[in-house]
Amino acid sequence: MEFSVRVDVTHRPGILDPQGAQIERSLPALGYRNVGQVSVGKTIRLVIEAESETAARAELDEMCRRLLANPVIEAYAIELEEHVSA
Amino acid sequence: MEFSVRVDVTHRPGILDPQGAQIERSLPALGYRNVGQVSVGKTIRLVIEAESETAARAELDEMCRRLLANPVIEAYAIELEEHVSA
Repeated sequence: MEFSVRVDVTHRPGILDPQGAQIERSLPALGYRNVGQVSVGKTIRLVIEAESETAARAELDEMCRRLLANPVIEAYAIELEEHVSA
Repeated sequence: MEFSVRVDVTHRPGILDPQGAQIERSLPALGYRNVGQVSVGKTIRLVIEAESETAARAELDEMCRRLLANPVIEAYAIELEEHVSA
């Protein structure tokens, strides 16, 4: 089975988010005074081949810890759906 | 009204994605040979105060073009939902 995957990597609470802070400081200068709580994360999209959704999730979780995220400072969320080839 | 917003910024088709390419090259070396089509984008989360969803969307669209994304090489998608304060 093939799955389309989206991994959302965000900063853990309390970890500095310099990109988000910079955007939050820049917006008022551009005239947007109605925006707050800005944070910036990354999103990794990929396609994985696995025997089942459970197997895919287990492997993705390992991949996140080993390569895609830094578990010390980042949190990640995995969303996947079965990929239907056209 | 207050809205929780998520802006997904991705590379336009045909634009180089060096982070995605690097992950795609690294995964087989770590033993993952069942993964492909890797791409990396960024996600900006924020809270915006606006009179209506339409007004919020219009302002977010402008913000994306002016600051959050580079429309020449990046595409963006805006998702928002009304923010219920606790």
